[in-house]
Amino acid sequence: MKPSHIEHLGIAVTSLDATIPFFEFLTGSKCYSIEEVADQKVKTAFFKVGQTKIELLEPTCPESTIAKFIEKNGGRGGVHHVAFNVENVAEALKECEAAGIQLIDKAPRKGAENLMIAFLHPKSTCSVLTEICEQPK
Amino acid sequence: MKPSHIEHLGIAVTSLDATIPFFEFLTGSKCYSIEEVADQKVKTAFFKVGQTKIELLEPTCPESTIAKFIEKNGGRGGVHHVAFNVENVAEALKECEAAGIQLIDKAPRKGAENLMIAFLHPKSTCSVLTEICEQPK
Repeated sequence: MKPSHIEHLGIAVTSLDATIPFFEFLTGSKCYSIEEVADQKVKTAFFKVGQTKIELLEPTCPESTIAKFIEKNGGRGGVHHVAFNVENVAEALKECEAAGIQLIDKAPRKGAENLMIAFLHPKSTCSVLTEICEQPK
Repeated sequence: MKPSHIEHLGIAVTSLDATIPFFEFLTGSKCYSIEEVADQKVKTAFFKVGQTKIELLEPTCPESTIAKFIEKNGGRGGVHHVAFNVENVAEALKECEAAGIQLIDKAPRKGAENLMIAFLHPKSTCSVLTEICEQPK
C-alpha cells in the first residue's frame, strides 16, 4: 500500500458543542463543516491542520459504535481511528487481503465528505482502528 | 496556536519487532530510524506518510508510561498521543496556559529526533494526549 498522507484522525467526543472551541484553538482553524452521517449514527465536525483533518465524532444515539467506544473508555472520548488516503480503496483492500489483514469492510462504501472508505480490523492493525479512504473524483 | 501540520502519531506497541513489518506495509515506507529515549523508557521506530510520522513506542521496562498505557488497555497498544508541529513550543505553551489548558510540561524539553517538545494534559484536551513540538534549528 502507498498512502499519500493521513487523511484524518477520527476523535470520539461526548459533545461537539463542548469540544469545537478547543479544537479550533488547537488547530488554529475554524470548524469548516458539521455533517450528520446517519448510517454511522454520528454527527461530525471537521478542522484542517496541514494535510490532515480532525474529524470529531459525536454519537447520535446509545447504539452508535462511538457511544460504545466512549462507554468502554470510562465515559471519555479519545482517538477512535486513523484514516490513510489512497488512490484507490478497492485496490488497497485487495492488497490488504493478500497481506492477510482482516477487513471490516470487504468493499468500499461512502463515508463523510463523500469519500469512499473502508475499515481494517484492529486485530490486524496493532489495535489501531484503521480506515483507508479515497477522494471523490 | 497555529500548528503547520501533525508532526507525528505516537502509537504504543508491545514489540517493535512484531509490529514494524505491518507499519511498513501500511505506510508503504521503510522504518527509517530506531532510537531509544532513555528518560521516557521507550524504544521508538519511525515511518513517514506525507507530512506526518508514525512513531511506534515500545516500553523498555514495566515502569514506563507506555507499559502502563498498554496494561490499562487490556494488554493492547493503540494511539498514545498526537503531536502538532509549531514554530515555537515556548510561545505555544504560553498561549495554551493563557487559554486555561493544563500543561504536563511547563517548559520545552528534548524529545526523540532532537525535537523540542511539551505535553498538554488530556484533562484539558478532550482526553487526547497532545504533544506540541518544534523542529531542531
